[in-house]
Amino acid sequence: MSEFDLINQYFKTPVTLRNDVLLGPGDDCALLSPPPGKVLAVSTDTLISGVHFPQSTQPEDIGYKVLAVNLSDLAAMGAEPAWVSLSISLPEADSGWVERFMQGFNELATGYNVALIGGDTTRGALSITVNITGFVTERTALRRNTALAGDLIFMTGTLGDAGVGLNAVLNNNTHDKHLAHCINRLNRPQPRIQAGLLLTQLDRVTSIDISDGLLADLGHICEASKTGAIIKLDKIPLSDELIRYYQGPEAGLNCDPLDSKLDFKPDSIPGSIADWQAITCSGDDYELCFSCTEQSAAKMLSLFKARSLPVTQIGRMTSSGTIECLDKNAVPHPLKIKGFNHFSNEK
Amino acid sequence: MSEFDLINQYFKTPVTLRNDVLLGPGDDCALLSPPPGKVLAVSTDTLISGVHFPQSTQPEDIGYKVLAVNLSDLAAMGAEPAWVSLSISLPEADSGWVERFMQGFNELATGYNVALIGGDTTRGALSITVNITGFVTERTALRRNTALAGDLIFMTGTLGDAGVGLNAVLNNNTHDKHLAHCINRLNRPQPRIQAGLLLTQLDRVTSIDISDGLLADLGHICEASKTGAIIKLDKIPLSDELIRYYQGPEAGLNCDPLDSKLDFKPDSIPGSIADWQAITCSGDDYELCFSCTEQSAAKMLSLFKARSLPVTQIGRMTSSGTIECLDKNAVPHPLKIKGFNHFSNEK
Repeated sequence: MSEFDLINQYFKTPVTLRNDVLLGPGDDCALLSPPPGKVLAVSTDTLISGVHFPQSTQPEDIGYKVLAVNLSDLAAMGAEPAWVSLSISLPEADSGWVERFMQGFNELATGYNVALIGGDTTRGALSITVNITGFVTERTALRRNTALAGDLIFMTGTLGDAGVGLNAVLNNNTHDKHLAHCINRLNRPQPRIQAGLLLTQLDRVTSIDISDGLLADLGHICEASKTGAIIKLDKIPLSDELIRYYQGPEAGLNCDPLDSKLDFKPDSIPGSIADWQAITCSGDDYELCFSCTEQSAAKMLSLFKARSLPVTQIGRMTSSGTIECLDKNAVPHPLKIKGFNHFSNEK
Repeated sequence: MSEFDLINQYFKTPVTLRNDVLLGPGDDCALLSPPPGKVLAVSTDTLISGVHFPQSTQPEDIGYKVLAVNLSDLAAMGAEPAWVSLSISLPEADSGWVERFMQGFNELATGYNVALIGGDTTRGALSITVNITGFVTERTALRRNTALAGDLIFMTGTLGDAGVGLNAVLNNNTHDKHLAHCINRLNRPQPRIQAGLLLTQLDRVTSIDISDGLLADLGHICEASKTGAIIKLDKIPLSDELIRYYQGPEAGLNCDPLDSKLDFKPDSIPGSIADWQAITCSGDDYELCFSCTEQSAAKMLSLFKARSLPVTQIGRMTSSGTIECLDKNAVPHPLKIKGFNHFSNEK
């Protein structure tokens, strides 16, 4: 099967129709009509087999995840998804693989009304590059460099699940039903598009998505905003499944992340420094970490609660220039800030 | 050196400043302001070492070429270049390689006023994906599907040089000074942006860039437009260097491709069927192949001549549904239409 046949078969049949796509895949370029009064938010991510996902990952999950991580960048900017380009390198022309890949990709594309506007298929080591465009108004776009000391720090959802999921996959623990939630969070991250759009309704929200680990990504905000941060470890929202993972199946605690003054008494979980190190530095959760004023926080909590979007206050911006993590007794808890470094293979 | 250091060092310092780039590399997304009244032309291309360029290609040439082939897609659409995203996979964090790569890339980006708005650096087999956006008016964008039987077929520049250059590189003939022109055409293709922009001034021009070989790419026009074509092989413009390659150094002929009624007497060159096969089916020339009415052709020739842009009539559209190649005696010359098929490794 030739490159052109592959493209014709799987990419030229649009699953999402948008009026602003004047010409889709098949010509030298796509032709797109941007909406008046908006600016474009554009992001590119490459996912490589064995680096960004385990080689055993199913094609459907790869297709889902490459789009999800790009949607997550739009979410962090508060942008509405619109158009996506897809470049796939494949070791061989495996139409069954592409069909399954596109099934996962299209599932998410349809859900977020994203149109596939073009792409490229080449022979090479398995690698996928997605370029995504969304719409946002210039004034309300969520940036990294607008935080001020005193702002409250929040995150959506729960932290650390994907990291435990990755360990499970790498250790071939994929059949442990207690780990299914974490593995699903690794393979099928939920981009926080709705949360990002809501945040654009507030004044001066500073936002990033957690792809490289909470401390690394919060560090990017602090660096861009010239702030520091205090994180209260006992406030970090953990899923029931993650708590069970650290405590054993009988210890599942009731955790309602909607309540920003959450008091789920994690006295004993996670118990060791190593656990917090893993939770705050593992990547792939694709939750949003953002900061805002106390006034904006009140409005935000109301908006999020009305839509059952989980959000938790985890700390506060400071002027220190560093990130300090405190335990429940307000004692500093030394953690090394490690992001995902592809070249040194560190996590 | 970490991924972030690499990105900071080479990608965050813009060499091209544009007012419509509201936020460049460094946040979750770039923020871009599209011009009112225009539509966006968007294209993506991936180039893989050993597939799209020989593994011996110098980093400067790879950097130049990845942008050139994407600019060529904009040229084929008649679009004005604006923004580009760059994703690079590298086996290791080689800052010297990236510096040289960016030197070639930036040379072309500066020349065409293209702003680098973001990208991604990952560890993997050497592979580069570029996503480019240009501006065009919807009515004048050059498409593939608008040709009619009777239209004249033209091409810019000369054909076949890059194919000979590729053979030279693969056979380690890089020090033969007679092949320097062809090798340069392989490594440093000149995107025909100016020609594409001029063509938007004419009525109903149908256009494609020659990346996969003249016959394959003209075949895409015929397929999209539901036409056929007759190509007069003796009218195909060849560089002096290519003629010398086929005839020996003493046989260089004076070839003025500006004259569409060119009569350079190629009675004996290229002599064999195999030569025409190679010339019409080798890729990487990145010239434009386009068709238009006789009335538009007259205006086009005047516009191109005023700017010293080389263009040659090579045939005419038909209603046959096939491409027929004729020799100088109007005798059909059987040629197999072979495009670049990455998966079967055919040329």
